[in-house]
Amino acid sequence: MNIADNLELIKKISIPSPSKIVLLVIDGLGGLPNPKTGKTELETASTPNLDRLAAKSICGLIDPVSPGITPGSTPGHLALFGYDPVKFYTGRGVVAALGIDFDLKPKDIAARGNFCTVDSSGLITDRRAGRIPTEECTELCQLLDGIKIEGVKLFVRPVKEHRFAVIFRREGLAPEVGDSDPQQTGVAPREVKALNPQADTTAAIANNFIAQVRAVLASHQPANMVILRGFSQLPDIPTMSDIYKLKSAAIAVYPMYRGLAKLVGMKLLETGAAIKEEFDTLKQNYADYDFFFLHIKSTDSAGEDGDFNRKVSAIEEVDKALPTLTGLEPDVIVVTGDHSTPALLKSHSWHPVPVLLYSKWCRADRVGEFSEQACISGGLGRFPATQVMPLAMANALKLAKFGA
Amino acid sequence: MNIADNLELIKKISIPSPSKIVLLVIDGLGGLPNPKTGKTELETASTPNLDRLAAKSICGLIDPVSPGITPGSTPGHLALFGYDPVKFYTGRGVVAALGIDFDLKPKDIAARGNFCTVDSSGLITDRRAGRIPTEECTELCQLLDGIKIEGVKLFVRPVKEHRFAVIFRREGLAPEVGDSDPQQTGVAPREVKALNPQADTTAAIANNFIAQVRAVLASHQPANMVILRGFSQLPDIPTMSDIYKLKSAAIAVYPMYRGLAKLVGMKLLETGAAIKEEFDTLKQNYADYDFFFLHIKSTDSAGEDGDFNRKVSAIEEVDKALPTLTGLEPDVIVVTGDHSTPALLKSHSWHPVPVLLYSKWCRADRVGEFSEQACISGGLGRFPATQVMPLAMANALKLAKFGA
Repeated sequence: MNIADNLELIKKISIPSPSKIVLLVIDGLGGLPNPKTGKTELETASTPNLDRLAAKSICGLIDPVSPGITPGSTPGHLALFGYDPVKFYTGRGVVAALGIDFDLKPKDIAARGNFCTVDSSGLITDRRAGRIPTEECTELCQLLDGIKIEGVKLFVRPVKEHRFAVIFRREGLAPEVGDSDPQQTGVAPREVKALNPQADTTAAIANNFIAQVRAVLASHQPANMVILRGFSQLPDIPTMSDIYKLKSAAIAVYPMYRGLAKLVGMKLLETGAAIKEEFDTLKQNYADYDFFFLHIKSTDSAGEDGDFNRKVSAIEEVDKALPTLTGLEPDVIVVTGDHSTPALLKSHSWHPVPVLLYSKWCRADRVGEFSEQACISGGLGRFPATQVMPLAMANALKLAKFGA
Repeated sequence: MNIADNLELIKKISIPSPSKIVLLVIDGLGGLPNPKTGKTELETASTPNLDRLAAKSICGLIDPVSPGITPGSTPGHLALFGYDPVKFYTGRGVVAALGIDFDLKPKDIAARGNFCTVDSSGLITDRRAGRIPTEECTELCQLLDGIKIEGVKLFVRPVKEHRFAVIFRREGLAPEVGDSDPQQTGVAPREVKALNPQADTTAAIANNFIAQVRAVLASHQPANMVILRGFSQLPDIPTMSDIYKLKSAAIAVYPMYRGLAKLVGMKLLETGAAIKEEFDTLKQNYADYDFFFLHIKSTDSAGEDGDFNRKVSAIEEVDKALPTLTGLEPDVIVVTGDHSTPALLKSHSWHPVPVLLYSKWCRADRVGEFSEQACISGGLGRFPATQVMPLAMANALKLAKFGA
């Protein structure tokens, strides 16, 4: 049975009930051992609360996409929410637009943009324009929002710092075009190229937009140019409510994760940015939903920066806040990550991610600490991340028997 | 996501790089415990080098096809190379023809043949004609190569000892015909039967060929007849270079494994037949390729013969040669088998096969010896053999991130 079939099955047997599930995603959780100590970030961190929870949970290791595949955040999260991460993959543009609560229509083409800096020859010197403040980004977006392209409605909206979203609205646009973002400095932004003939118009519109932007921004330092990537359209994706009959809410600070949550139909909760504040947001909204996606970003950021110790500290901060969650006594608690981000690799990686699942009915194993090594011996074994949600649903007694 | 989708994904994200992968396949590696000692062949063998390598590797158990399925050598190897072993399965004929470097064309029908001995009633008394020497096989093939069939170009080529390949070249031939080889003695060779109407012509040609062979060989003892099996056509299979962007080479002595390597586009290296010589061949060619398939046959032969101790010795011989491989310091080393061949069963079996994967980034587990029992607790868990290549590619940093 493939994953799509599994979703159909789950949809048939899921039942609404008052039980509550909390999915805590510690972004980039998995790591690699520090050569000096032989311990990963999670193994180094002092995590008494996670360890105590692991001791009464069933543990294992998940592959977000499949063994060997390093997932981006989108496939990593889609899999955790139970969706085939290849089939339902969507580009960064859609996720960015949804993350800022833009009312994206099914035919819209959305792209993620960066304000960047180019030198007098047009070569990129800074892909993030010195991470201009969000206020400046907002002003520049208002400027660009005034650009006119015949027959096209366009929207330029700020995301955060140097990041923005651009949306092209017109009938008959196809999203299959390449990025203008070359993902490196010292070169010029690329021309947007159609990847198939149906997308010729999209490419022409994007290039027209970029040419006008260049003129509008010419005198603005350091944000004197833009680079675009992840041109995409809303995928045809069933919501969490369709599949699981859950009333779901997301607690996430970064727009991208808010966008991913919105894509699958979650309500986006307002929250403070600190880890402790995110857990407080869970407590404040606990009565109103039966599924919570609680996203922690700082672990991944530290891993991407290659800062082993900062990742350790971020994990410890999550551990300190955990009693706020466990004190609510959810029927099911899942703690995991959307992928590994070992500080040693300074990037996402393919390594499987520790997962623990607590419920009254979980059939706890003998794993007594939450770590990569300990989870190898867990009762869940090593399994695809798409199976996390069916397991959580089952443990919340929200899945009826299949067949007589 | 099924395996075919996975190949498509890998093809999109694989990147050429100078890092090197060595896949050491110890044929029929997995075994069953000797009832007297409770230890398998691998557990009985003294393997200090493999154990040392296992200690710094991540280990597990692979299912070549799926749990319970006993694979032949073709599906076993296809899976290790990352191909769906059911979808891409091809018959013995194609593998035999490729293994002797015959220039097989896409429409050719190839079959594997044995010279055999029949008695005066035409019943088979020896399926291998006393394993005639390769020289005699070569002479007899020259005789048979002269057989004429109207409208058909035919080629008869020696393989090794009693083995040969026959190729029928004509437009419009379908490969779906049964074997003439009954796989037992005391019965007559079978008539070749079409398994569907499209294959009627192929069956008629094969039976015509066999009838003429019978007349030509009548006076040749002990090789007075032939039996044919594995009628097949080249499958439509992407190469290792297509999928992984690898420059791959094979070190294998037996024609069948050379044929399998050629099928997926590997360069076949000339090599001495002894285990030590195969490892020397690796060393001599190490600079010129970034992927090596190194195949050891004697473990499987010993298992098939039911010779527990000979299999133990063969494993020990591999262990002794291992430092030649590890001394080259490949970025990724995989050691495994294409299936189990327990001496107790005297045949291939369905038991999962120990696997170790070493790289700087492998996230080593606590497995300190290379054995069936120890690998149960390995960090890779139990998984399909088709995932070995994606893992090797990831560990060689030859796979880009999937999705943003």
